[in-house]
Amino acid sequence: MGQCHCHKKRKDSQELTDVERAIEIVINNFQRYAVKGRKECLTPNELRELVVQQLPHLSQHVCSLDEKIECLGDPDEAKLEFGEYWAIIGEAAKGCRVKK
Amino acid sequence: MGQCHCHKKRKDSQELTDVERAIEIVINNFQRYAVKGRKECLTPNELRELVVQQLPHLSQHVCSLDEKIECLGDPDEAKLEFGEYWAIIGEAAKGCRVKK
Repeated sequence: MGQCHCHKKRKDSQELTDVERAIEIVINNFQRYAVKGRKECLTPNELRELVVQQLPHLSQHVCSLDEKIECLGDPDEAKLEFGEYWAIIGEAAKGCRVKK
Repeated sequence: MGQCHCHKKRKDSQELTDVERAIEIVINNFQRYAVKGRKECLTPNELRELVVQQLPHLSQHVCSLDEKIECLGDPDEAKLEFGEYWAIIGEAAKGCRVKK
């Protein structure tokens, strides 16, 4: 399985925008850690490793992230799909946005 | 209101990771277009403008995105919060990931 196929230059030879490239980085990050699930899903342990290595600052904005990961089930067997990964990051992103 | 405050160098002088910087780009993009809602929410028209200008390739992976935007309500008055924006992008990201 190759990288997220958005990265290829579009036929209309337009490069991805900065925002699209940023989204692609977040996608590829999921795939990089989703080894056991062959890029389709993460185990709780893989997610924890991802958070520690890739989201050291952002993860501080997700209250009780550790507990959330615990609740996902067997650390090595439970399966976290891309949508759930994206939702967790969205929570952190929401928390990280400018406070009123 | 300033930028997403994650971008400041952490006290422990560690820079953000690539993934954190990418997430920050997606956050700041929301804030850039959320003019009427003072960075807190987008109108459907602002979202449409964002999609056309910033997600020209990725948006092709969200089926009937236009209809989705239509359903959000009054193009100039309805309010789309950050979480909803993030979910729409997640849908596009899911669609864009490598096909089996």
